Amino acid sequence: MKTVSQNKAFGGVQGVYSHDSTACGCDMTFGLFLPEEAEDGPVPVLWYLSGLTCTHENAMVKAGAQSWAAEHGIALVFPDTSPRGDDVADDDAYDLGQGAGFYVNATQKPWAPHFQMWDYVAEELPALLAGSFAIDPERQAITGHSMGGHGALTLAMNLPGRFRSVSAFAPICHPTASDWGRKQLAEYLGPDESKWARHDATLLMRETGFDGPILTDTGTADQFYDLLQTHALAEAVAKRGQQAQIRFQPRYDHSYFFVSTFIEDHIAFHADALYA
Amino acid sequence: MKTVSQNKAFGGVQGVYSHDSTACGCDMTFGLFLPEEAEDGPVPVLWYLSGLTCTHENAMVKAGAQSWAAEHGIALVFPDTSPRGDDVADDDAYDLGQGAGFYVNATQKPWAPHFQMWDYVAEELPALLAGSFAIDPERQAITGHSMGGHGALTLAMNLPGRFRSVSAFAPICHPTASDWGRKQLAEYLGPDESKWARHDATLLMRETGFDGPILTDTGTADQFYDLLQTHALAEAVAKRGQQAQIRFQPRYDHSYFFVSTFIEDHIAFHADALYA
Repeated sequence: MKTVSQNKAFGGVQGVYSHDSTACGCDMTFGLFLPEEAEDGPVPVLWYLSGLTCTHENAMVKAGAQSWAAEHGIALVFPDTSPRGDDVADDDAYDLGQGAGFYVNATQKPWAPHFQMWDYVAEELPALLAGSFAIDPERQAITGHSMGGHGALTLAMNLPGRFRSVSAFAPICHPTASDWGRKQLAEYLGPDESKWARHDATLLMRETGFDGPILTDTGTADQFYDLLQTHALAEAVAKRGQQAQIRFQPRYDHSYFFVSTFIEDHIAFHADALYA
Repeated sequence: MKTVSQNKAFGGVQGVYSHDSTACGCDMTFGLFLPEEAEDGPVPVLWYLSGLTCTHENAMVKAGAQSWAAEHGIALVFPDTSPRGDDVADDDAYDLGQGAGFYVNATQKPWAPHFQMWDYVAEELPALLAGSFAIDPERQAITGHSMGGHGALTLAMNLPGRFRSVSAFAPICHPTASDWGRKQLAEYLGPDESKWARHDATLLMRETGFDGPILTDTGTADQFYDLLQTHALAEAVAKRGQQAQIRFQPRYDHSYFFVSTFIEDHIAFHADALYA
């Protein structure tokens, strides 16, 4: 693992690190904020999965999360959204290929050799962090924005016991029924839709739900509102009687100004679960 | 004036606007955050002047200032750092020309036709804002980062009565004695150093000081520490008996992680003066 940069921030350290990823078969870069408390021992951790076109850097510099993470003594991990590199498959569309991994393990050509983002965020990166930093694997929570909200919800429901709480900003809630999802799942996983089901938060909510609290925020002026299919998740939550807050924020859009406005609430929400 | 974008943020609106600048002879773009309170009438305003290489956008997306401005009901203005455009003079160096206006009125070729940033931030943009937005010109404060800290300090001391308080993050404190200053002042203002004096915060502090409180933060691990010449300003403040807090923050560097860490303090500091 290589240290790309370290900046003192909010009493702790905002680091950027790169490493040779076995899952993705390429160099992967991630951001990690460690609060001051990490100098004295392992701290709880909140994963932040980013959306389409983002790298590890967008949320790290624009979400304003470190301020609140420092207040609660929580570490933040910012993984990249896909494998990267000249020898990694890509597509001209902004919503497929590099920057658009959708947090799945691709089985199809040309994606399969590198696009193993599920294994990367569910297995490889957690093991790397646990071995290298003062992070408590027993106290993890997860959030994300847009495609990253999809990732957060699907990871949380597929890995029972891993995360104490899950939240999301403008998540893609029902990708098997959206143009943000059907194209990508077909490309990465092939045409058999039964293989897509475990990567759809709404289908997972209907099937299993989440053993913990859920918080989502979506702006009513979100320019991608129809693609998110929030109504489908809301209906599934209601039918299950899932512990959840599904919030709709008047006049907010899909941008990082929306994320940064509500990140304080989300981190306080996770802190409640992480320190319970 | 043209609205480039508006995003709801922290209960208010983060806007970006462009206009045909008389002072600079080109289109200029600025960011303006209006808190919710601006819907009911004029609010106090904090100017944020940015550093080398920045546009109106950097601080707007990376400083985390809107959160605290909203808490205190204060507007934020983010001007650009220079004129821009294909027909505007430039230089290959990152610290001269476009992105590096140094908040002066250039008198020398090739800069004079467009590089009138003093007039732009001291006269033209304030008049535009007062005429177009719910901003109270009687309650203004100013801050900035690096070159923008230089701008904030020199504007505040040159315009008595304009700003109730001034602060700065890692300001260039003594440009007439620094490689961040001597080259640019010679290029923009010519070789007569007497013309440079009113653009040097340390010289102004020796001469006139500021009728209000001053706050500066500088990281002790700032990679440009020597260029800032903070010791010269600190000495001048001490000799004058100026009301000021000159703070040195251990292990912080020159980055926006440093700015975002301390922006809460700065906005609270300005709120005290703006609501006094």
